[in-house]
Amino acid sequence: MTSTMQKQNLQTLKGFRDFLPPEKRARDLVMAKIKTTFERFGFEPLETPTLEYAELLLGKYGAEADKLVYSFEDRGGRQVALRYDQTVPTARVLSQYQNELGKGFRRYQIQPVFRAEKPQKGRYRELIQCDADIFGSTASIADAEILAVYYFIYRDLGLTDLVIEFNDREILISNLMPYATQDLTVFSIIQSIDKLDKQTVEEVATELVAKGLSAINANKALTSIQQVNPSPNLVNILNVAQELGIPQENLKFNPTLARGLDYYTGMIFEGKIPGESGSVGGGGRYDKLIESLGGPNIPAVGFGLGFDRTVEVLESRNLISVITLTQVLVTIFSPDLQGESLKVAQSLRSAGINTELYPDPSDKLDKQFKYADKKSIPYAIVIGQDEVDKNVVTLKNLVTHEQTTLLISEAISNLKI
Amino acid sequence: MTSTMQKQNLQTLKGFRDFLPPEKRARDLVMAKIKTTFERFGFEPLETPTLEYAELLLGKYGAEADKLVYSFEDRGGRQVALRYDQTVPTARVLSQYQNELGKGFRRYQIQPVFRAEKPQKGRYRELIQCDADIFGSTASIADAEILAVYYFIYRDLGLTDLVIEFNDREILISNLMPYATQDLTVFSIIQSIDKLDKQTVEEVATELVAKGLSAINANKALTSIQQVNPSPNLVNILNVAQELGIPQENLKFNPTLARGLDYYTGMIFEGKIPGESGSVGGGGRYDKLIESLGGPNIPAVGFGLGFDRTVEVLESRNLISVITLTQVLVTIFSPDLQGESLKVAQSLRSAGINTELYPDPSDKLDKQFKYADKKSIPYAIVIGQDEVDKNVVTLKNLVTHEQTTLLISEAISNLKI
Repeated sequence: MTSTMQKQNLQTLKGFRDFLPPEKRARDLVMAKIKTTFERFGFEPLETPTLEYAELLLGKYGAEADKLVYSFEDRGGRQVALRYDQTVPTARVLSQYQNELGKGFRRYQIQPVFRAEKPQKGRYRELIQCDADIFGSTASIADAEILAVYYFIYRDLGLTDLVIEFNDREILISNLMPYATQDLTVFSIIQSIDKLDKQTVEEVATELVAKGLSAINANKALTSIQQVNPSPNLVNILNVAQELGIPQENLKFNPTLARGLDYYTGMIFEGKIPGESGSVGGGGRYDKLIESLGGPNIPAVGFGLGFDRTVEVLESRNLISVITLTQVLVTIFSPDLQGESLKVAQSLRSAGINTELYPDPSDKLDKQFKYADKKSIPYAIVIGQDEVDKNVVTLKNLVTHEQTTLLISEAISNLKI
Repeated sequence: MTSTMQKQNLQTLKGFRDFLPPEKRARDLVMAKIKTTFERFGFEPLETPTLEYAELLLGKYGAEADKLVYSFEDRGGRQVALRYDQTVPTARVLSQYQNELGKGFRRYQIQPVFRAEKPQKGRYRELIQCDADIFGSTASIADAEILAVYYFIYRDLGLTDLVIEFNDREILISNLMPYATQDLTVFSIIQSIDKLDKQTVEEVATELVAKGLSAINANKALTSIQQVNPSPNLVNILNVAQELGIPQENLKFNPTLARGLDYYTGMIFEGKIPGESGSVGGGGRYDKLIESLGGPNIPAVGFGLGFDRTVEVLESRNLISVITLTQVLVTIFSPDLQGESLKVAQSLRSAGINTELYPDPSDKLDKQFKYADKKSIPYAIVIGQDEVDKNVVTLKNLVTHEQTTLLISEAISNLKI
């Protein structure tokens, strides 16, 4: 570190992260698997810019959220803002390219979004959002497809115990409407009910009483909503979802799930991993949102997946196998044998094996092994004079320290697990 | 489009782009191939944040470039800036995590960078940079590895005719130094010489005379630099590069290649595609840059690849095969047969086939075929009562309009090309 360097220069901004190779590899792996599942369900990728006109984003998320939008004036005097979510830019895309996209547009989007929030454990200012939506259909198959792709993403990642809790906004509204008064909206009642996953029935009843309900009505409201059955709409969706392969035990009707109140119009759901607190994202049907954001009048159903949370859960369960991208280090026995190592590296790479070539021919072999170890490269290849004479290589397993001498073609088959 | 929408809302900012599925698919495909080649050469992924302290970035790229950095004050009063390149943040990373990264860190980085430049054809304000560097080695193998991974990226993308023009900064300096005077630096002479790829010898000679050289010296300088041979350093690197698999015909010594003057210290190179103007990126050795940026004193060699330019060339040569992510649309014959379609969609997906399920069971079959056509989905599957009775499906090729009736297992093998 030079004396010209300021301490501050050495830091990332709070809430922003560097991903060094081990973490970046893990994240890339998870992302690639998610992408594969999206595409297996016919979802197509979309990308929108990091910067948009501030006017597009502000006023769309509510006054509180507006404060969390990174916005500024650029050198051309334009008010610009960093992407805050992927829904508003997509509403713009749906307006701008209506003819190209057509009906039945199903897209996924995996991009960073930016939120000037107070950073805290698990909450970042730059984070990956991972959304999928089907636009232009109100059919229950569309809802079920969304549940299915969500379930299979987690199943394919190894989280086979994911539970999808689901509900229908109509259930909440029709069952709680009778308790609404001029002073107490049904939405306010739902807000209290939504707390049942963290509070006792008594606590929620107390809150409802404090909001103005009689004790009798508060209890009636609570009892009735807890005993309600899935709506016909929900039953339809669930049948289709099961035919699409979601096992019944991974689906759980939760009549008190509210999932925000703002824009959902039908089925809503949240993904929960047993043993982990909170959800790993969720979604639902929002048939009026795109229009209210300034887009066309187009029904939609979809979800946002908590990418960081999902990676954390996978890591805590050791479900991301410690992948070493680089399978083998080709060492250089001595400067005069360098050419042999180059040839072997070239053969391995031609065979599709991820191969690092040690760059400094004058370094001792021991130093080269330590280098591979430090980088968690599992194998090293040594080509000394003996090996050259016999036209073979020595393949050393750096974990078990076993070594075998074999033809280069054999080494290739051994490394090609 | 609703009346609440402002015209401006519907636009991306100039110099910023949406990538709709066809373009995004092509870009993702190219990116995945580049990633694969990087990893085959032992390079590992690194990611740094989009936002940094402005102080880290400003003053690093020169006064002109500083004006192109998107910087602003965030809500916490911090001066922040959008990533302008990947080298300065990496210099920070090299300082901050010296112990973790160690010697021989070879990383690739593929991220957007932001430049408040005047947008014009092929020049964007948000663009993908794609860098790879080896840190901590001065050995010629490191230089050759950089040339090799660069060559193989293009070869694997199908651009087998890529020509790597190379030179050594030492050649330029030692050969032109004799013509430098107190009023005319060797760098100024090099700057003129660098124009030989676009200007005639006469034009460059005229420029050198205008800069103060005598006509005799200008011609001598031009003749001498054009006739010079590769330095021993360069010969070494080239031998290694060829042993690593770069064919000789893809390498071209160009003693007048200068590639900017600011920070290269040894081998320099540029990739050119025959028949295309300009370069598709390049790089070289820069042993002092990381320290001058405030990082540790660490030698480095690497390159930046022109991602947008490369995608353009691939598209113009039809080298990105029109990939359809979604292989088949499962149609719904009639609402009462919906369940059969669901089952088939589930089987296809289980077999790893990218399958879209048509969402609206009441739409006519013809409409469903048109939908698949519009999305360029090449196949459709039909399951009518006949098919159900015989436990088969009809597979329709939407390009040739051929259709065959076969077992679902046979349909799967047909689709699994």
